[in-house]
Amino acid sequence: MRLSRFHLNTSKETPADAEIVSHQLMLRAGMIRKLAAGLYTWSPLGLRVLRKVEAVVREEMNRAGAIEMLMPSIQPRELWEETGRWQKFGGQLLKIRDRKDAEFCYGPTHEEVITDFARNELRSYRQLPLNFYQIQTKFRDEIRPRFGVMRAREFLMKDAYSFHLDAESLAQTYQAMYDAYSRIFSRLGLKFRAVAADTGAIGGSASHEFHVLADSGEDAIVFSDGSDYAANVEMAEAVAPGPRPAAAEELREVATPTQKTCEDVAALLGLPLQRTLKSVAVVGEQGFVLALVRGDHAVNEIKLAKLTGLVEFRMATEAEIVEHLGCEPGFIGPRQPAKSITVIADRSAAALADFVIGANRAGFHLAGVNWGRDLPEPDLVADIRNAVEGDPSPDGKGTLRMARGIEVGHVFQLGSKYAEALGATVLDAEGKARVMQMGCYGIGVSRIVAAAIEQNFDANGIVWPAPMAPWQVAVCIINPKDDPAVVAAAAQLHEELVAAGHEAVLDDRGLRPGVMFGDIELIGIPHRVVVSPRGLEAGTFEYRGRRDSESRNLTRAEVDAALAC
Amino acid sequence: MRLSRFHLNTSKETPADAEIVSHQLMLRAGMIRKLAAGLYTWSPLGLRVLRKVEAVVREEMNRAGAIEMLMPSIQPRELWEETGRWQKFGGQLLKIRDRKDAEFCYGPTHEEVITDFARNELRSYRQLPLNFYQIQTKFRDEIRPRFGVMRAREFLMKDAYSFHLDAESLAQTYQAMYDAYSRIFSRLGLKFRAVAADTGAIGGSASHEFHVLADSGEDAIVFSDGSDYAANVEMAEAVAPGPRPAAAEELREVATPTQKTCEDVAALLGLPLQRTLKSVAVVGEQGFVLALVRGDHAVNEIKLAKLTGLVEFRMATEAEIVEHLGCEPGFIGPRQPAKSITVIADRSAAALADFVIGANRAGFHLAGVNWGRDLPEPDLVADIRNAVEGDPSPDGKGTLRMARGIEVGHVFQLGSKYAEALGATVLDAEGKARVMQMGCYGIGVSRIVAAAIEQNFDANGIVWPAPMAPWQVAVCIINPKDDPAVVAAAAQLHEELVAAGHEAVLDDRGLRPGVMFGDIELIGIPHRVVVSPRGLEAGTFEYRGRRDSESRNLTRAEVDAALAC
Repeated sequence: MRLSRFHLNTSKETPADAEIVSHQLMLRAGMIRKLAAGLYTWSPLGLRVLRKVEAVVREEMNRAGAIEMLMPSIQPRELWEETGRWQKFGGQLLKIRDRKDAEFCYGPTHEEVITDFARNELRSYRQLPLNFYQIQTKFRDEIRPRFGVMRAREFLMKDAYSFHLDAESLAQTYQAMYDAYSRIFSRLGLKFRAVAADTGAIGGSASHEFHVLADSGEDAIVFSDGSDYAANVEMAEAVAPGPRPAAAEELREVATPTQKTCEDVAALLGLPLQRTLKSVAVVGEQGFVLALVRGDHAVNEIKLAKLTGLVEFRMATEAEIVEHLGCEPGFIGPRQPAKSITVIADRSAAALADFVIGANRAGFHLAGVNWGRDLPEPDLVADIRNAVEGDPSPDGKGTLRMARGIEVGHVFQLGSKYAEALGATVLDAEGKARVMQMGCYGIGVSRIVAAAIEQNFDANGIVWPAPMAPWQVAVCIINPKDDPAVVAAAAQLHEELVAAGHEAVLDDRGLRPGVMFGDIELIGIPHRVVVSPRGLEAGTFEYRGRRDSESRNLTRAEVDAALAC
Repeated sequence: MRLSRFHLNTSKETPADAEIVSHQLMLRAGMIRKLAAGLYTWSPLGLRVLRKVEAVVREEMNRAGAIEMLMPSIQPRELWEETGRWQKFGGQLLKIRDRKDAEFCYGPTHEEVITDFARNELRSYRQLPLNFYQIQTKFRDEIRPRFGVMRAREFLMKDAYSFHLDAESLAQTYQAMYDAYSRIFSRLGLKFRAVAADTGAIGGSASHEFHVLADSGEDAIVFSDGSDYAANVEMAEAVAPGPRPAAAEELREVATPTQKTCEDVAALLGLPLQRTLKSVAVVGEQGFVLALVRGDHAVNEIKLAKLTGLVEFRMATEAEIVEHLGCEPGFIGPRQPAKSITVIADRSAAALADFVIGANRAGFHLAGVNWGRDLPEPDLVADIRNAVEGDPSPDGKGTLRMARGIEVGHVFQLGSKYAEALGATVLDAEGKARVMQMGCYGIGVSRIVAAAIEQNFDANGIVWPAPMAPWQVAVCIINPKDDPAVVAAAAQLHEELVAAGHEAVLDDRGLRPGVMFGDIELIGIPHRVVVSPRGLEAGTFEYRGRRDSESRNLTRAEVDAALAC
């Protein structure tokens, strides 16, 4: 490819409305152009990168036995009514009326359509398992589209759906998809983590998210430094510390006139924050509950909602707190409440001795408190807090570390949720109709492009992992005197590299070296080889890798060796 | 590929609601499934064919120097207001409101978006010419979607848009696209014609349609049997016949009491239809016009509307006819009208002598009529009729033949229409802003699949041109005794064929031979090779080409030779 016959349009200015670095660099490199909020045109340069990702995804899906198909982007309301998601999906569902006033949506996902396909196509367990996928444009009407293609409304997604007679078969395909996803992100040259995830609104039993690691990532994930354990921070088990020490202090009331937070109380008393107890008042199906975590921990609402009686809990009102504890918020605690309440303690909270709690008297806390002696043991001890850096890994190997991630893939064991709603059954070996088990497996193809940049950039622009680069090597011409020999040498090198199987681009635009090099660095080409009159005379080429700090003069053979790295 | 790990779902029943053969066979082969009116899921089998077409289109577009990009499917109303097409495009435009009540459409075409892209991206004539294309899902809200993917609402299209400083450059790229399209349809193995077309509502100056020839085609096209001239019947020039013969008969009035059509009058008088004149009364910008064609010809309204004063003509009412000609319809003619009128004669009509016209008296016609002698020469002689089979070719070479075609491609010289409306200019060599010239070039990728079937089928199913077939060769296993040696031999043959570069599929589903062969024929695989116990013993394979009437027993080497054909 000759750049003079391509369309490259770079900019030095950082666009004012682009908040994150991938959005800024994609605009500066001219990879994308905004058409409207959350709608982006992929320029020829951008599309080259997008197609690289798409090709790797397709190859690995095929290798894993998934079968490609293509469903319509426009889906009829009737199907979404069958699963109840026409209402439940919310405002992200772009609803459409056609000229005959029939209602449709622009598919944000395809569980309904594929399950309808499966219920019509599949009759016998002998046809199973099957794993269908497509790579297709989706639309989610984000209320606040932002960050360019990171959170666009229209985006490219690979979505796969598997069908099974039983959970065991589902688990096998789930593992095959997990492995395929790992291969995909590895092949793309990305640092990533597969983390156990909450199944959330989509339902189902098992789920992993695949995160590209980047400091700017929206999601907090934890991982072990001693094993491959990783989880979304919301999901990670916060393990119990060692056994509770024996009581050493006497119970005493301390004046804390203005100290309402654990931090303030600990500071006043000169105690570590870990010795204080945070009391969070909520109301569940069976009434008032006090949830207790250590002062240095945070209550995890997702974990709390998994406990019996708290599935639809809410925060208690101030009036309810006063009614049940006899005290205003800020000084509340589990000892001697005004009314009978349920006390749930996090494992770390239950393992404390000689700790501090609110006294249920305005302006006072209690110190030297001990379970059993000063107040009853908790009604329930459970994992109700977020894991934090330094916690032991739940698998017993190593210590948890925190990282930021960008979710680019997600695998779910859906179970029978959609097949049940749509009546998708097959006959089993006994001739009995059985509802199929399903898995679903998504990859945000266009999002990967942005996530890769968040992970790989420097002051000069994008630093593509080689498998995602629009071209592997740029041949640049420096030729101030318009010497035809220089042009010919560059064209020849370009042709030789292409013939040798390299994706090479010839920068024959006739720009000044600084501008040309700036472009090639900005768009992240891994290798740059310069053909100049001086080099031609010396029989060398000026080579520079995208991550190198300096150029080197190489012979033709050395250029081949450099490109092989 | 092993069919047991694929998803094939064929049917013997012809679906009741499928009117044309391609729709029937695509449903029977399980290539597509209907989701809703005009919305189809492409099954794994169907998608394999669609991707074959897509790949050839992409390769030839790239070879022709076009640059791939990808625009959003959802487009903002504002852009369509700039060209006036938000209203003008009509009911086919699927209009959408997002959650913030902003208006969009699902793009049926992308002139607005690409011209907006170009006006923002292009500054200088030095960047031109450029030819951008995409292969993308489009939506047209057809009032009556039918014929499966032939006239679906959601469909896959390749659309390209070129930008130029001047008309000469546009003409060059237009020719390059014309050539690329010819290569695409040739490579796909289709019989096709490129025909001169009317530019219609999309505007512009030059246009060709590419038609796949098929008896079931919606469009009538004419082509020369002595050259490569071809045109849409609406566009084909109807050439002038030889010079007008001398008058030989006397003018006479004949009674035609109930004969109102040329056919009836000719029959009554025992004259050939070609000697009668048909009078069609219309009203244009300058008043009442009588358009005359020979009785065996039909007025072409598109040609008529190109004449000065008839751009927005309409048919005359009966009252207007009586007012201007003094006679009711059925007996009207150009001689002695009641009021002054304009007479426009087709070239063939003007070349007649001794012909028959209405007498402008109810119940009577005039015979032996001659121009000049019995009535004035026509005010205008022009090509205003449809070409017919047997006409001389307009290029002077050969005779016109008629064919039916399915439009699968279209190239337009748009000129400055969209660039003007959207203000897409570049600076020319003198630094002056100039509106760009544009071309646009579409291919109905999904429609080609259906059109190919309309052209290539028999009683047993689809007969794919090899380049479009889902696989080139099927290896079938006949193994009633479950002999592992037969299975192994089939698997080995399959592997050898794949290794030799053939797209082979192994039918290991364990079906009875009749059912298996029926499937393989229905889905149109060009080559079938059967591995059976008897063949294994004899060292032969039973081979049958999809168009063959009988099978042949071939050695392994002969199989290779057969596949090479």
